[in-house]
Amino acid sequence: LEILYDFTAEPGNNELTVKEGETITITNPNIGGGWIEAQNSRGEIGLVPEDYIEVKQKIAVAPAPSVGNVAAPDLSFFDAYAPASTPAQNQASNGNDPWSVWNADPSGGSSNNWASNPEGTQTGKSAAPDPWASVSHGHPQAYQGPGADDDEWDDEWDDVKSTGGYAESETGEGGAMQRGGAHATSMKIALNKFPGFSKSGPELYLLCKQLAKGKDRLPIYMGEVGPVWFYPETQLDCVVADPKKGSKMYGLKSYIEYQITPNTTNRPVNHRYKHFDWLYERLLDKFGSAIPIPSLPDKQVTGRFEEEFIKMRMERLQGWMTRMCRHPVVSNSEVFQLFLSYKDEKDWKTGKRKAEKDETVGVMIFSTIEPEASDLDPVEVEQKCEQFSRFTKAMDDGVKEILTVGHEHWKRCTGPLPKEYQRIGKAFQNLSSVFTSSGYQGESTLTDALTAAGKTYEEIAQLVAEQPRKDLHFLMETNNEYKGLLGCFPDTIGVHKAAIDKVKEGDKLVATSKITPQEKVTMAKRLSTMSYALQAEMNHFHSNRIYDYNRVMQLYLEEQVKFYETIAEKLRQAHSQFTTM
Amino acid sequence: LEILYDFTAEPGNNELTVKEGETITITNPNIGGGWIEAQNSRGEIGLVPEDYIEVKQKIAVAPAPSVGNVAAPDLSFFDAYAPASTPAQNQASNGNDPWSVWNADPSGGSSNNWASNPEGTQTGKSAAPDPWASVSHGHPQAYQGPGADDDEWDDEWDDVKSTGGYAESETGEGGAMQRGGAHATSMKIALNKFPGFSKSGPELYLLCKQLAKGKDRLPIYMGEVGPVWFYPETQLDCVVADPKKGSKMYGLKSYIEYQITPNTTNRPVNHRYKHFDWLYERLLDKFGSAIPIPSLPDKQVTGRFEEEFIKMRMERLQGWMTRMCRHPVVSNSEVFQLFLSYKDEKDWKTGKRKAEKDETVGVMIFSTIEPEASDLDPVEVEQKCEQFSRFTKAMDDGVKEILTVGHEHWKRCTGPLPKEYQRIGKAFQNLSSVFTSSGYQGESTLTDALTAAGKTYEEIAQLVAEQPRKDLHFLMETNNEYKGLLGCFPDTIGVHKAAIDKVKEGDKLVATSKITPQEKVTMAKRLSTMSYALQAEMNHFHSNRIYDYNRVMQLYLEEQVKFYETIAEKLRQAHSQFTTM
Repeated sequence: LEILYDFTAEPGNNELTVKEGETITITNPNIGGGWIEAQNSRGEIGLVPEDYIEVKQKIAVAPAPSVGNVAAPDLSFFDAYAPASTPAQNQASNGNDPWSVWNADPSGGSSNNWASNPEGTQTGKSAAPDPWASVSHGHPQAYQGPGADDDEWDDEWDDVKSTGGYAESETGEGGAMQRGGAHATSMKIALNKFPGFSKSGPELYLLCKQLAKGKDRLPIYMGEVGPVWFYPETQLDCVVADPKKGSKMYGLKSYIEYQITPNTTNRPVNHRYKHFDWLYERLLDKFGSAIPIPSLPDKQVTGRFEEEFIKMRMERLQGWMTRMCRHPVVSNSEVFQLFLSYKDEKDWKTGKRKAEKDETVGVMIFSTIEPEASDLDPVEVEQKCEQFSRFTKAMDDGVKEILTVGHEHWKRCTGPLPKEYQRIGKAFQNLSSVFTSSGYQGESTLTDALTAAGKTYEEIAQLVAEQPRKDLHFLMETNNEYKGLLGCFPDTIGVHKAAIDKVKEGDKLVATSKITPQEKVTMAKRLSTMSYALQAEMNHFHSNRIYDYNRVMQLYLEEQVKFYETIAEKLRQAHSQFTTM
Repeated sequence: LEILYDFTAEPGNNELTVKEGETITITNPNIGGGWIEAQNSRGEIGLVPEDYIEVKQKIAVAPAPSVGNVAAPDLSFFDAYAPASTPAQNQASNGNDPWSVWNADPSGGSSNNWASNPEGTQTGKSAAPDPWASVSHGHPQAYQGPGADDDEWDDEWDDVKSTGGYAESETGEGGAMQRGGAHATSMKIALNKFPGFSKSGPELYLLCKQLAKGKDRLPIYMGEVGPVWFYPETQLDCVVADPKKGSKMYGLKSYIEYQITPNTTNRPVNHRYKHFDWLYERLLDKFGSAIPIPSLPDKQVTGRFEEEFIKMRMERLQGWMTRMCRHPVVSNSEVFQLFLSYKDEKDWKTGKRKAEKDETVGVMIFSTIEPEASDLDPVEVEQKCEQFSRFTKAMDDGVKEILTVGHEHWKRCTGPLPKEYQRIGKAFQNLSSVFTSSGYQGESTLTDALTAAGKTYEEIAQLVAEQPRKDLHFLMETNNEYKGLLGCFPDTIGVHKAAIDKVKEGDKLVATSKITPQEKVTMAKRLSTMSYALQAEMNHFHSNRIYDYNRVMQLYLEEQVKFYETIAEKLRQAHSQFTTM
């Protein structure tokens, strides 16, 4: 097989660097996600994007293995979720945890982004990578190859390219950027769909002649805590479950399909990861200027069919869906409802095309917002905005600190600590064996007790190694989710700040006849609407935050109590075996 | 001040290398133990043996500080015993523990000694360092200087040099060796006091014309477990307490005097460390061939008056005395009784001189032993000896393993682990502060609870750091004591093996007329006596071992249970502060 393009391996990803024209041998075609495992002439084995290879021998390709019968992946990622029976033995690799790739730079690289780029998207950097992209690593190279991603977007009943007004976002330049950045979060706010908009920022909304009419009005009420979205009486919810492997192209390509069951219809629908990704793109396009739409869990290319990975992704997709369901605006949107409760393939396709044609995207979402309260003064708007900016930045730091500390703790609890308890246990047992060999009569009570004590410490080693999955895991997942959410705020707030600046320019714009005095008044009014939206969103965020942290801290402490009680009880039993003298 | 001799600093001991003729400035004359702190011309500060210095300005020397008002020593030794209030803050140095200097090479350097030198003292290595000397570090250099040790052996009422038959052991070559090796344990068995003995080994006893008569007979009975010493009805015991600082030479020299109260007279006597050392030498001379006499706790030169050090040394002197009191032969000896219950200084001096003149030392101790059972076959003697050798070697390995593992655990518990819990605690508290700044109403329940949870983890950090002193300390002390005891066995067993070999040579010796046939019979009989002594001693060892390990394991597990229960309870309280939703 011949290499069509140069490919440089990303360190630590089991990839293989290949040169154009090089000949390689496929060692495992069933990696999935656009990757194959290959061996070069020097005998080195690694992953190569399959689109970089001119496949001459399709016949030689083996059928895809079924789920549950896959080769064990050698990624350290999975070791943190290795079978519970041997955590303490797998010291070398057990220190890794699923958060290592998201582990934030504690020195606060993001602080600089917050500080140095307060203007957000207005500075023409809207196509730049996520300010926190450094904490999110995918396999971007895999998506840079010519047509490398095409297959990810084709499947049996979804192969007709959309032809709507903004369909180029899927295959054109915009789409390429989206995939190139994998999940570069909200920087993908669809500002660039409107000619010249990426430079003009929020004035598209601030100065537009006519606000959208009819359905999809988003009212904002004054609640006890201030401006709030309209909350439905029953909260939407859904269950993501039952991941099933599917394949196409005679087993060459395979994927996982998840079953999603909303509490409204109670009827399950199936979606692949790429459909979630499609939904994410739509929500980001539509709501991203007003509502932080957190990224999906990272695309993990290698080992995509490993059971533990699937379980982990499902758990995170569930977390993402739950968060979206809880959002009164998002959950009530047509595109979200379509995703959860389309009736058949035709319904899905129709809805999909319609969603892609939606023009109320980007800052235009504000045109649908209707606050019930009176207009806010721009000074007050700015103060609120500054406050939210400070808070989200501070919380982002706090959350990252917990992730860093938790990551360290995870490593210790699954690495050196159980190893040490195991060594203590072994030392007691060894001494017990020596004592048994003494030939002195009547010391079996001591040696039995000493052996039991040793075994107890080995059990403690295991408890210690398993504990993080029972408590720290959820603390980490919650904080990781919040890191994702908080990572959206710089963009959301950036749009807001750009609008504030535009309104501040109002007099000058009138003086230079760029806008009419009436337009200046309209701008201030619309800025007030934007502020209400931001406040409603912040209040939604706070209320969820209080709920989430209360819940996760309770769970964490509950499990920690159980953990220490279990150890105390085990030691109490070990103690009771020694003779009282 | 001028340097009289070259002195090379021992790494890690805060010492200062100085050259003959160099000029230094005294920065602290009150270090004690024959050391002063000085600064050289390059500004480097460190400890120098005071006898290496020609003091020209005695007037400039400050009076010794009183106990409790000493400058904090900078030896890491003490950090493990630092005030309990700040264990978690002293991360850098807290990792050290008092066992670091005794920490055995886990790869088993001693195994080689056991294996490669099975002949023990017979090979002419009786003056060689302790086979386990590598695990015992003093400040040997301090004792190598000319006359450096003289003062240690002079005091107000003990300044008359002994003039008895073996008095040269104190100041002559033998004495120098003893001090040079600090506590090189039983290698100091006084074989070299008898001309040519170091080569002939146990034959002094095996072939001596007449056994000692009269008092001090040491009977051996047949007990349930085999040969046993005669045990008194009430066991001797004593309390080492009330360390008091004394000084002489106008405060230039100071020392600590301990009060020892035996349960027999209930009348306290005072002794300095050097008196314990004198007792140790006497016991080693007298009983060392038959009974392992464990070394005293190491001489610690620097920081000798630091409170924690004094406490630690007292604890270990107490342990040593308790062990000696428990031994039926040692505790009943005249020299031991003298030490515990001399009436006045005259009584002490007289007894001291008498003890130094005792001729029933070295292998001659066996001449006082009277087994009640019939003679053993040399083959059986050898089998028993091999068994004891194997067991003590194996137990030595087991004990060292526990010390190594315990040392590691001590470091973790006082170093990185509490630091991590502290960071977790801080992270929770920081997040709580951020939440408090949200401006969102009604989240004080969450923020209070989160702060409390954070403080709980800080408390846990402290508990973790303090715990080793409550449980691991005693486990380590017991095992350290046993390491010392087991370190005596190669010599004791070596004497035994040398005797076995001599008896095996019996026929050859008769054939070459080196001994008479009658002497050959006597040798076999006396070897049997030695074997009974060794068996009685092993049975004593086993019985003590079972008692000691039972007790220390109970204490350890009891404290461990309390520790984990305390943490669980603290976490339960922290948990209860979160709102139930």
